[in-house]
Amino acid sequence: MRKIPLPSIERLSNIYGLLRKLEKSGIKTVSSAQIGKNINATNATVRKDISYLSMPSVAGRDYNVAKLKKYIGQDLKFFKQRKACIIGLGRIGTAILAYEGFKDEGFEIAAGFDVSLNKIEMIISQVSLHLIHELESIIRSREIEIGIICTPPEAAQDTANKLLKANIKGIINCTTAMVSVPEEVIIRNIDYTGYLRIVSALISQRK
Amino acid sequence: MRKIPLPSIERLSNIYGLLRKLEKSGIKTVSSAQIGKNINATNATVRKDISYLSMPSVAGRDYNVAKLKKYIGQDLKFFKQRKACIIGLGRIGTAILAYEGFKDEGFEIAAGFDVSLNKIEMIISQVSLHLIHELESIIRSREIEIGIICTPPEAAQDTANKLLKANIKGIINCTTAMVSVPEEVIIRNIDYTGYLRIVSALISQRK
Repeated sequence: MRKIPLPSIERLSNIYGLLRKLEKSGIKTVSSAQIGKNINATNATVRKDISYLSMPSVAGRDYNVAKLKKYIGQDLKFFKQRKACIIGLGRIGTAILAYEGFKDEGFEIAAGFDVSLNKIEMIISQVSLHLIHELESIIRSREIEIGIICTPPEAAQDTANKLLKANIKGIINCTTAMVSVPEEVIIRNIDYTGYLRIVSALISQRK
Repeated sequence: MRKIPLPSIERLSNIYGLLRKLEKSGIKTVSSAQIGKNINATNATVRKDISYLSMPSVAGRDYNVAKLKKYIGQDLKFFKQRKACIIGLGRIGTAILAYEGFKDEGFEIAAGFDVSLNKIEMIISQVSLHLIHELESIIRSREIEIGIICTPPEAAQDTANKLLKANIKGIINCTTAMVSVPEEVIIRNIDYTGYLRIVSALISQRK
């Protein structure tokens, strides 16, 4: 398989999410225009992204949902199970902890961490919860690859540094703080303000 | 000002978020390559997006952080205050409710809604909280433009329909359900699984 450019990987991941939802709704085919509208990309960009896949090219205009999903899953290795952990068991952290849909998607929340012993003892969860000083040893022993930072913003960089020390491969930063990591570590920020900003800008443009 | 294509608006919004963070860290200039790395786009795409702004083109390679931020804010109308409301006051909903940083960014959470009177009475917040049947009248009277759906997934589409009836302009869907809205309404989904998937795909590609 050819090396897929990073922005295409990101869009193909989003297309995969869309295809899963379409499949659940019983929809069998989808056009590149419909895909584009959903993931906010042009028609041409969608076709270009899909052309990177090992899937034989399609004659007609519409894609078969199941087939396209299969090829993205295969080429982007979504069938590999991956373990993640949550650091910071406040509102967002416990909401993610309680979400049962990840397993279905190939992700396992393998541990949760907090600085407060009280929180760890109070929270009822299937996931094993630990004090933060156990972070490195548990990440290594359970082969956890992704860390989800849900701490207060002031603790975000320090948490990231601990994750890096444990050789984490990817970080999802759910705080409002900016977190720096070395080039080889993947990081994505979930930023509610950012979404409000995008929706706001699109509303302005529409008028 | 020229009409900016939708994907460029989305990226410019993300660039604006980055510039705000850089400014807070005291960083004065930034290259298109650094911006691209942060928002996951190529150098050329970043320069193209910025070329849509009313800002005079830059001779050197680096952008002045404050100046670029000013032009994006102006052209995308981020200086206009906008009101949003939260529907569903569970873990995610109350986490967003408690977040104090929105005001700073020009957003006001003007109301919260839930089906449970008990929740509304129990939650301590500066924001006024109401039963869901008041949704339409409050959105109209307070001129709320954006609805943030934090209900259980089964209630997401029904909530969206209520928001549409109240003439909402934009929706942020924080549930895992797929929500359909008419063409003229802006919708964005915050999807934790989606982020896990992107990070996972990028980890696979790195190896």
